Amino acid sequence: MTTIDRHHCLNLDAQDALAGLRQEFDLPDGVIYLDGNSLGAMPKSSASRAQQVIRQEWGTDLIKSWNSAGWFDLPSRLGNLLAPLIGARQNEVVVTDSTSINLFKAIAAALHIQASHPASAERKVIVTERSNFPTDIYMAEGLTRWLDRGYQLRLVDTPEELHKAIDKHTALVMLTHVNYRSGYLHDMTAITAHAHAQGALMLWDLAHSAGAVPVQLNDAKADFAVGCTYKYLNGGPGSPAFIWVPTRHQEVFSHPLSGWWGHAKPFEMQPSFSGTPGIRRALCGTQPIVSLAMVESGLEIFGKTTMAALRTKSLALTDLFIELVESRCASHPLQLVTPREQERRGSQVSFTHPHGYAVMQSLIARGIIGDYREPAIMRFGFTPLYTRFSDVWDAAEGLRDILDSKAYSLSGERNEVT
Amino acid sequence: MTTIDRHHCLNLDAQDALAGLRQEFDLPDGVIYLDGNSLGAMPKSSASRAQQVIRQEWGTDLIKSWNSAGWFDLPSRLGNLLAPLIGARQNEVVVTDSTSINLFKAIAAALHIQASHPASAERKVIVTERSNFPTDIYMAEGLTRWLDRGYQLRLVDTPEELHKAIDKHTALVMLTHVNYRSGYLHDMTAITAHAHAQGALMLWDLAHSAGAVPVQLNDAKADFAVGCTYKYLNGGPGSPAFIWVPTRHQEVFSHPLSGWWGHAKPFEMQPSFSGTPGIRRALCGTQPIVSLAMVESGLEIFGKTTMAALRTKSLALTDLFIELVESRCASHPLQLVTPREQERRGSQVSFTHPHGYAVMQSLIARGIIGDYREPAIMRFGFTPLYTRFSDVWDAAEGLRDILDSKAYSLSGERNEVT
Repeated sequence: MTTIDRHHCLNLDAQDALAGLRQEFDLPDGVIYLDGNSLGAMPKSSASRAQQVIRQEWGTDLIKSWNSAGWFDLPSRLGNLLAPLIGARQNEVVVTDSTSINLFKAIAAALHIQASHPASAERKVIVTERSNFPTDIYMAEGLTRWLDRGYQLRLVDTPEELHKAIDKHTALVMLTHVNYRSGYLHDMTAITAHAHAQGALMLWDLAHSAGAVPVQLNDAKADFAVGCTYKYLNGGPGSPAFIWVPTRHQEVFSHPLSGWWGHAKPFEMQPSFSGTPGIRRALCGTQPIVSLAMVESGLEIFGKTTMAALRTKSLALTDLFIELVESRCASHPLQLVTPREQERRGSQVSFTHPHGYAVMQSLIARGIIGDYREPAIMRFGFTPLYTRFSDVWDAAEGLRDILDSKAYSLSGERNEVT
Repeated sequence: MTTIDRHHCLNLDAQDALAGLRQEFDLPDGVIYLDGNSLGAMPKSSASRAQQVIRQEWGTDLIKSWNSAGWFDLPSRLGNLLAPLIGARQNEVVVTDSTSINLFKAIAAALHIQASHPASAERKVIVTERSNFPTDIYMAEGLTRWLDRGYQLRLVDTPEELHKAIDKHTALVMLTHVNYRSGYLHDMTAITAHAHAQGALMLWDLAHSAGAVPVQLNDAKADFAVGCTYKYLNGGPGSPAFIWVPTRHQEVFSHPLSGWWGHAKPFEMQPSFSGTPGIRRALCGTQPIVSLAMVESGLEIFGKTTMAALRTKSLALTDLFIELVESRCASHPLQLVTPREQERRGSQVSFTHPHGYAVMQSLIARGIIGDYREPAIMRFGFTPLYTRFSDVWDAAEGLRDILDSKAYSLSGERNEVT
């Protein structure tokens, strides 16, 4: 058994240069929140920002806020705030719509670029992982079924299979950078280079990496990216997603969701679509301003630190959790799903247990909030902005106590899990 | 000149059975707000509803609110609240995404139904109006260009041309029920019947009619409808839109935006899309919960009245405004664009003036908030939930005074208009 104790973890908190960032959040008392990989916690400024938008900008200033409060520019302004966190340049990101809708735009744009090549008839395969988040697969299915031009999805199961599957028939490789279930972190640079060497384009879904791990989209020469603002970016429940189109692709960026916000002159009300230059061509319709504006409260916290510092703490947290669980729960049938190798690990740790669902329900009943994913996977997300080393200790101890006492067998019937 | 005076209008307010509904809104002092056709005013309960979602449901209850606060069910629950306002049944409406995105789904679904008919090769035209709101046209352009199966858009300019254009080559007729510029109100039942007689399907955009005029989608036998919740429904800036699919089309309803929220078993994370039965197949990705939840504050006000009562007051307001402007500003080159005939009029009145933009800027500077649309059109929206007869008098008097004194020539340079 490890010699680490709670006192040691409290010392780590005392020495943690990022510890003060927890004060930027309102976290409920008595809760250890390890589900920021699903829904990030609430920044203290979110409620007041929403009140400003609702009472002042909407209630008092009404229609003129589209200009005076910058509502129409919000997708670009927030995109520019987000850009440094993912290695994007200014004017390469907009915050808009849902991740699913943005996937549709990016997949369509990639196929459009490929179709303009002479050998496009030979390049009809979209490669992704069977373990990718389902909506990524579903959106590719929906688009290719509708296009009905012979595109096929190829779902792979292992990194080796992935490597081999990318070949001269591949139009697009579409991967989620950090797997939502296992926390496996892909090598963005290597896979992008391999895709390019085979003539394929590369789309990254950053849902579980934006704000969680350092991302360098331009350095990796990626082609497109989408992601989520309500997980590690703490934008609020269901807050609008983002899409990244590098400067070099913006001129040829074309997708079928050509709504009025993507028009070159949206207020001239022309009866024919003419796409605006630049990243705003990725916009479609009117955006939900209150939910959108709240994204800023999450993003501005990142201005107080760096992704490198957050990554260092994230790995220390996940290392510690793995060590504590494996040493203190060694007699129980837990299996680590997340890579032990730091370079392949996101900011979460997943363990299987034969009674994973019931164990997680018991943890939640004690205020240790992780979540559960089939099959038998307990997920624990570690958000270095607000998770403490002592939280890691307390969560591992809670898990040990539940397993030792078999308290989980008291849990009720299986409920639907979100 | 009319014999109506301000005292008469105050008497109309005193006798108005709906006058008390104005108390449901927070309207800024010193403002006559006639732009609810663009952005509805703020219900008093909106800010507290948002605070409940942000502080309690997000901040305190965190991830469990997807179930416990009913976040996942919000699109359907709000759709069911909205349904009676548009003549829809329960489980035929969801509130989700933007109007543009919902147009895409509905157009795609209509073309899919038509393509399953043996004679589909002959039926390749989508008929709409050149004066339709641009995003309606743009979304149809985007979809048909990408499908690349010979679909064509036919843009018509007059009701007569519309009637003739609908023929055996028409796959879909796509109209906005009340025109955003002129306020012209189409005869939904007659046009739908004509479209059906020619074998075409009928899609209605209710952006300017939901909550503004009585709508009976099922009685009219319409095929699809979409609409907006941030205009007459007062959902908040950019609040999510809605889509209606009648029960009879739900089994064959299919669209390419097949995200995980439209899956039959979204939490089983299956690697292949299988659409859920019913209206939730119109959902795609995760929704912006704060903006979405606030839609309820607008909808619940409609429970205190009926669309018939609102229509009666709306017509009285617009009749009064037309009469006052035409009589008291008779010496000025104003031209009524909105139909004089009640049956063809929505809940707005539009006048052209050669200096329309400058005149509108002067009105806004005085706190009389309408808006301007090219070419030379001043729009005045009348929301019977909160607009008073005395507001109509004051707005018409403000207009008369600005025109008589030529105060509009003092207005500054032309700014971008939203």
